[in-house]
Amino acid sequence: MTNKYDVLVSEVGPRDGLQSINTVFSTKGKMQWIKREAEAGVAKIQVGSFVPPKLLPQLADTADVVNQSIQIHGLNVAALVPNLKGAENGMAAGTHQIGVVMSVSEAHNQANVRCSTQQSIDQFAKIIAFRNAHLEYKDIVISGGMATAFGCTISGKVPICDVLRVAEGLLKRGAQRLNVADTVGYADPKQVRNLFTELYRAIGDDIPVSAHFHDTRGLGLANVFAALDAGVREFEACLGGLGGCPYAPGASGNIVTEDLVFMLEAMGLSTGVNLDGLLETREIMERHLNGEPTHGTFAKAGRPKGFVIKPAIF
Amino acid sequence: MTNKYDVLVSEVGPRDGLQSINTVFSTKGKMQWIKREAEAGVAKIQVGSFVPPKLLPQLADTADVVNQSIQIHGLNVAALVPNLKGAENGMAAGTHQIGVVMSVSEAHNQANVRCSTQQSIDQFAKIIAFRNAHLEYKDIVISGGMATAFGCTISGKVPICDVLRVAEGLLKRGAQRLNVADTVGYADPKQVRNLFTELYRAIGDDIPVSAHFHDTRGLGLANVFAALDAGVREFEACLGGLGGCPYAPGASGNIVTEDLVFMLEAMGLSTGVNLDGLLETREIMERHLNGEPTHGTFAKAGRPKGFVIKPAIF
Repeated sequence: MTNKYDVLVSEVGPRDGLQSINTVFSTKGKMQWIKREAEAGVAKIQVGSFVPPKLLPQLADTADVVNQSIQIHGLNVAALVPNLKGAENGMAAGTHQIGVVMSVSEAHNQANVRCSTQQSIDQFAKIIAFRNAHLEYKDIVISGGMATAFGCTISGKVPICDVLRVAEGLLKRGAQRLNVADTVGYADPKQVRNLFTELYRAIGDDIPVSAHFHDTRGLGLANVFAALDAGVREFEACLGGLGGCPYAPGASGNIVTEDLVFMLEAMGLSTGVNLDGLLETREIMERHLNGEPTHGTFAKAGRPKGFVIKPAIF
Repeated sequence: MTNKYDVLVSEVGPRDGLQSINTVFSTKGKMQWIKREAEAGVAKIQVGSFVPPKLLPQLADTADVVNQSIQIHGLNVAALVPNLKGAENGMAAGTHQIGVVMSVSEAHNQANVRCSTQQSIDQFAKIIAFRNAHLEYKDIVISGGMATAFGCTISGKVPICDVLRVAEGLLKRGAQRLNVADTVGYADPKQVRNLFTELYRAIGDDIPVSAHFHDTRGLGLANVFAALDAGVREFEACLGGLGGCPYAPGASGNIVTEDLVFMLEAMGLSTGVNLDGLLETREIMERHLNGEPTHGTFAKAGRPKGFVIKPAIF
């Protein structure tokens, strides 16, 4: 897939954006967003999370959304799962990529899911075993997600060696991809370049690695640039920076999809994404938002003179 | 001066910020801002511009502001001048550093000051000659500023060779420093790293070079990171991102001083600036703003756990 363009832009708004705001989108509203964004050339969308509906009512229709999304030709449909039960539901729904996330920070993992990071890695192994035990699921890709890889609101700094240890643990148990996340917006670009350089040194270049940055302290795109330097070629982002940070009113959450695409395309890196289509998708999304704030600069400032917006590759 | 810390953060808000907003600060208000920011460890502040008061009433008191600012022990007081007349006024006021800015883009220079870039370089030579002819001005540093170095709203792309030609022209005529500005917020980090790498290759490492980025399309701090890679060690910024962009309502203007300092310090680069003091200065500035918007993420999100705010070095 990634050979069609230089960098894969993964939309995570229907999951990470929607789980962080008050508005509950209808399934129809989500599908309008997802379809239009796929048409704009975004080839991978994380459409939800298979968590108990009472925990995140915004994502209660994830199975429905997956069902409809996998009808979109060529779209890679991803979803998160918190545990084996969620993974079973996710696989049954036909999700193409299942993401299992744990915190590199022990304190954060304990606070979040009441078990150690090692126990989460063991849980991950069970999900892999379940997939492998079912022939009909053999094409489902399982990604190991490492949250708080750049710092933690509870324990502060997170050493790179802890990230490498979790990464190796996940790969040993069969992870086909890794996602490295700055869950709380602590990363700085020097740290990002170091971490991914060390990570590739430890695991080699064969395992696809994606990066997930927040823009809480304005460094999201600087971190993308640093990660590109280290070799990362897949980035998760959120249309309109939907989501914010519960600890920082008005602060941005995930990096903004359209700003990310603009930066990459401005640097001559093809994304396959049509920026006009992305702005139209943003408008569709905003219509469902009940006035909750969106972020991002490209939607306000527009394209520089001479900057060519490319057609979608899909 | 720069040997006290790794990177010099130059505040340009009292000039670039104030000239772009409606509110006219009193001289007293400006001095409260400038004094508090100097106390916070910001060692260089561009306090105004010696332009005709009818053009920019916000900066009509620049001579007064310079007079008071040079009383602040250790502060490097900078100002812009548009021409020889302005330079004479600036030198008479006791400004430590005079910045003369021209556009690398011919079309932009013509639109702005109705002459060619070459004619602006000739004007620059006259300012140098004037300074050299007056012994009492011998310590005044003259900086050559290159606007639209990364792109132009009129002519689009600006070739690197044009920037190098103007840089060499300015140095040949006696510029002691250069400032390279992304006046309209077009730069991307790849371009930034290329441009500064080429510039240092052309002019060597002895001439101090500062960079001026706008955050119009969200790439300001990514551009700083790229420029750091190429060797730049002085950055201009605006407290609270004051200014905005007249073409993009709500869009940020200059990069945000406190976000810049946070990024640099997070990467282990010392700035000599105390972030708490900077946030206090931001509050002082905001009190004079009549509700005009400010920008920036650090002021909202605060410091990451474990991040140590350093005392001011001054």
